[in-house]
Amino acid sequence: MISQEVLKEALKKNKLKSEVYGDLEYLRFTDDFKDIPRGTVLLKDTILWGYPHIGRIFQLSTGIREQFEGPFWVEEKVDGYNVRVFMHNGEVYALTRGGYVCAFTTDRVKDFVNLEVFEKYPDLVLCMEVAGPENPYVEESPPYIKEDIAFFLFDIMQKNQKSFLPYREKLRIIEEFNLPSVERYGLYTPEQVEDLKNLLKRLNEEKREGVVLKEDSERDKRVKYITSYANLNDIRITSLNMLGLPADYYTNRLLRLVLFLEEEGLKGDEELQKELGKAFLDGLFEACRMAREEGKVYRVFRCRFRSREKALVFLEQIKHASTHIQVNMLSLEKEGDFWVLEFEKVFLNMTGLLGYLLKGGSLID
Amino acid sequence: MISQEVLKEALKKNKLKSEVYGDLEYLRFTDDFKDIPRGTVLLKDTILWGYPHIGRIFQLSTGIREQFEGPFWVEEKVDGYNVRVFMHNGEVYALTRGGYVCAFTTDRVKDFVNLEVFEKYPDLVLCMEVAGPENPYVEESPPYIKEDIAFFLFDIMQKNQKSFLPYREKLRIIEEFNLPSVERYGLYTPEQVEDLKNLLKRLNEEKREGVVLKEDSERDKRVKYITSYANLNDIRITSLNMLGLPADYYTNRLLRLVLFLEEEGLKGDEELQKELGKAFLDGLFEACRMAREEGKVYRVFRCRFRSREKALVFLEQIKHASTHIQVNMLSLEKEGDFWVLEFEKVFLNMTGLLGYLLKGGSLID
Repeated sequence: MISQEVLKEALKKNKLKSEVYGDLEYLRFTDDFKDIPRGTVLLKDTILWGYPHIGRIFQLSTGIREQFEGPFWVEEKVDGYNVRVFMHNGEVYALTRGGYVCAFTTDRVKDFVNLEVFEKYPDLVLCMEVAGPENPYVEESPPYIKEDIAFFLFDIMQKNQKSFLPYREKLRIIEEFNLPSVERYGLYTPEQVEDLKNLLKRLNEEKREGVVLKEDSERDKRVKYITSYANLNDIRITSLNMLGLPADYYTNRLLRLVLFLEEEGLKGDEELQKELGKAFLDGLFEACRMAREEGKVYRVFRCRFRSREKALVFLEQIKHASTHIQVNMLSLEKEGDFWVLEFEKVFLNMTGLLGYLLKGGSLID
Repeated sequence: MISQEVLKEALKKNKLKSEVYGDLEYLRFTDDFKDIPRGTVLLKDTILWGYPHIGRIFQLSTGIREQFEGPFWVEEKVDGYNVRVFMHNGEVYALTRGGYVCAFTTDRVKDFVNLEVFEKYPDLVLCMEVAGPENPYVEESPPYIKEDIAFFLFDIMQKNQKSFLPYREKLRIIEEFNLPSVERYGLYTPEQVEDLKNLLKRLNEEKREGVVLKEDSERDKRVKYITSYANLNDIRITSLNMLGLPADYYTNRLLRLVLFLEEEGLKGDEELQKELGKAFLDGLFEACRMAREEGKVYRVFRCRFRSREKALVFLEQIKHASTHIQVNMLSLEKEGDFWVLEFEKVFLNMTGLLGYLLKGGSLID
């Protein structure tokens, strides 16, 4: 449990906010606070701990040796958004990493997850990645998801507990309820660095994001490692909204990219140079075109709901999610069994600055 | 003058610091403070105002129309460091933009500037750019300076005055004392945007940094405009020390580059993509190589002094200039009429982080 003093202090410092979703009232940690991770949620008698940060290694050969004392499990890191799915008073909800109940994910979880798991184990919290071309948050999508979204379980927590279920226990529950899971590549020893590098080369060619490594031990030590494809792709996807992201978003990815290649003895051939330059330039040129021709820099999202009402609730949620993004609904229409919501996110920083500069404005820097 | 209250407040807020150079004691504004620019220096009865910020336009056709009400002078913007040269108690000193008396620039100014100008006009403050392959601050150099350094006058101020001498007055003094000046391209009207674009195309091909435009009017309005060459070159030169710079250094330059090209109707061809990618990657790969093979990421500087003593004073100055850079002297030897100082700047952020990551360290981000 979290002590009353800590809660009071967090409230006073605005790190703990009250939220409402339908009949559900809850408190949400908006930031890391002491040892409490951002996204931790308090229901009446229940804590849903936030998903913890995982360290990133930049090179495998030294990183594995440095980080692990014994064998570790290797799993795909899917490029989507992180949710925690749980049952409360007979209803199933999905929390985002930040600790919001997401109306979209909550609406769709039953299409992908056998919810009987919560009847047998009501205290479980399923940690899953949601990804796909029709998700409302992430502009990227793994290439093997051709439409809509998909759910991928990677960890199981329990209510009121900060730690994860043991790996083999997780496997058992996945099997028992046939839960959708991230791809698992088995147990590697620290000596198998070359095998792991070969795996990463394949994942890179398949345009996957990377891997999470989980030590097969009591301490359950974890690290992640990202492919050069994913680093380049992050740049390509976000350059349209370059000013909306923290500037070190790009320097971080450049560094990761170079360390990935350097470990392989690569120097960055002309193909890579071109790809990197293009990743930055295409989005920026497109942003200029949009600002000039349409007066706004934006991206269109589309996602499928089962319930029209949830779509409207979701729209309200996302409208208030960021002061740097303006959300406009484009359409909400019945298509087969779905209500399909289309909306645009207008990137206000890019729109404002490019509009100003294209009109001949000056900046002091 | 600056009121006593403002001075006290600035001292209390640590925006005003006392400095010593030889027998000269002075106060220096370390940051912009109210309407006082960073680098403003107070001697006993004299204020040397800091060189003001100049706004930047990102596109010429709209920018000229928006910023200027009448004809404006066009001058080359030289890629070096900005100094203010003045005489005090019979001695000539050079201040950096930040308001330090620079031992190097002070040592060398007499080689380039006819100091008789201060005998006739003791209140003048010459605003000059110092550039060249053997300067101790800037890793770039205009291609037409083949060795050592050169001085380029672009403005004249007076002691205790914030404004510049009128343009024609500046020309007269340049002529009278044959002072070295930035290239001047004459007076343009706001209608001559196409001529100006052609000038910029030439400067871009000649690998020059850009232009400063100064309205020929009482208000002396100024803006600057940078070539795409210079934006790319900034990235190329600094990527070795990427983590030592503010992260928006790169996003700013990317934006400028794209707006320069967009105005020309260009989309960024493969050549540019490759050049941009290479600009980022080469420096980062070289940084990895240095960290791995030499245990440090660094750059070597070389500069020529007349006086051995000034070289040692300068070395002390630059050693204390930044906590992110460690300066090590490599040699100080007599070559012909010069004392040649060689030193390295070790980039501590890059050295530390790359060393940690290459050893297999992990980061949470």
